[in-house]
Amino acid sequence: MLVLTPEASAVAAERLVAEEAPVAIEVDGIGYAVMMMTPADLPAFATGFILTERLADHATDILDIDVFQAEAGTIVRVALSERCRGRIHERVRHRSSDTSCGLCGLSGLEQLRRPVPGRPPRPDVAVPALFAALGRLGDHQPLTRATGAAHAAAACDAMGRVMTAFEDVGRHNALDKLIGAMALAGISPAFILVTSRISFEMVDKALVARVPLLVGISAPTGLALDHAREHGLTLVALARSDTMLAINDPWRVFGDL
Amino acid sequence: MLVLTPEASAVAAERLVAEEAPVAIEVDGIGYAVMMMTPADLPAFATGFILTERLADHATDILDIDVFQAEAGTIVRVALSERCRGRIHERVRHRSSDTSCGLCGLSGLEQLRRPVPGRPPRPDVAVPALFAALGRLGDHQPLTRATGAAHAAAACDAMGRVMTAFEDVGRHNALDKLIGAMALAGISPAFILVTSRISFEMVDKALVARVPLLVGISAPTGLALDHAREHGLTLVALARSDTMLAINDPWRVFGDL
Repeated sequence: MLVLTPEASAVAAERLVAEEAPVAIEVDGIGYAVMMMTPADLPAFATGFILTERLADHATDILDIDVFQAEAGTIVRVALSERCRGRIHERVRHRSSDTSCGLCGLSGLEQLRRPVPGRPPRPDVAVPALFAALGRLGDHQPLTRATGAAHAAAACDAMGRVMTAFEDVGRHNALDKLIGAMALAGISPAFILVTSRISFEMVDKALVARVPLLVGISAPTGLALDHAREHGLTLVALARSDTMLAINDPWRVFGDL
Repeated sequence: MLVLTPEASAVAAERLVAEEAPVAIEVDGIGYAVMMMTPADLPAFATGFILTERLADHATDILDIDVFQAEAGTIVRVALSERCRGRIHERVRHRSSDTSCGLCGLSGLEQLRRPVPGRPPRPDVAVPALFAALGRLGDHQPLTRATGAAHAAAACDAMGRVMTAFEDVGRHNALDKLIGAMALAGISPAFILVTSRISFEMVDKALVARVPLLVGISAPTGLALDHAREHGLTLVALARSDTMLAINDPWRVFGDL
């Protein structure tokens, strides 16, 4: 590697590169998805993914998670409780049939119609705690420090302390790892802090995790904002060391400052 | 919206939000994919997407692109030449069957095995042009300026001038829009500049576009680097106003500074 400068000097350099590998998620013997991801924390990831995909409602519905290394990549085999087992068959059947036409694809847009488990609890966190968490997040981002190519998702308490955090080359995977770990360890954070934009899927995953507040370093998309509004999730976006932007009914949460 | 500060002051604010909407891509009557994206520049997007998905080899194989507004979202209907028409059926058949098990999913990992159209041309660009392009990119990012929630992909000439640029809430979509526009207008840039990390898919799309050099504002993943090395695409990563990191055989390109 070479470090280039505007004056066209060049200095040799070494830098670690973030691994990105295919990981197949197999649910009750059925291949469900192949994710390109940072292949670490796979039991937490699989737990979060199964929950945010609504293949199970509770971590206790996941009977077993087995990580198996194949030549072509990693397979994570998940066994679900009998109660949830029908869903994967239903989902795969739906997926096979939704290739009929564009309109069917749109009207079958499953991710927009997935059930959300009730309204999240009201946030109970003071503004300085949000800035404190942002300041501390770097200590929990070894992969980002080494490679510059990772996203992080952190569960934070009301004092802005990082309870646990995960990294991944993909922001959705980082959040699924966090949500899985929260479910497995029974962690209920005051808010989740993510280093990325707040897209529809990030809001949707936070709703599944029933977290009171989602804080993101970048901005939300319109669809993300609609989804948050519909289900009552407060968002704080563009979280920087000097300012943050509270959106979606911020007066309810931060109006009595 | 409320602007929050570390001292817990709060000031009301307004900010535009980037639209994110479902767009279904229908190829010869078959629903191929539904993308969550910035619903603009759809003919360019569809062209780039069809090319980078290897559903066609040349823009001239795309006979017609029709954008249709349905209630549930937007449908882009693409008609391919007879020569390419078999591929969509093959692809959909493959997709329906790859739910058999995790190992099948991995070994069938289509995106890792897609053909690449030969080695890209050798880059012919001086280092200052890379910094010049980075400095000018902001002028081509109205959506990012307004919302903070978009990625950009720009085609740049050897002087670092931006020939054309596209934005989208998703980095892959921004690059597909650019590649489509390049194919439609016959633009051959000296390099492509993207505002995101360089993941496997970003490298893969750049290879399809046969661009000599891919410059990204953030870092590459390991799989992206492997893919670039295997097919001879030079990468410049972590492009900042003061330094950039040239990787994958940079001596070949920048060693005679």
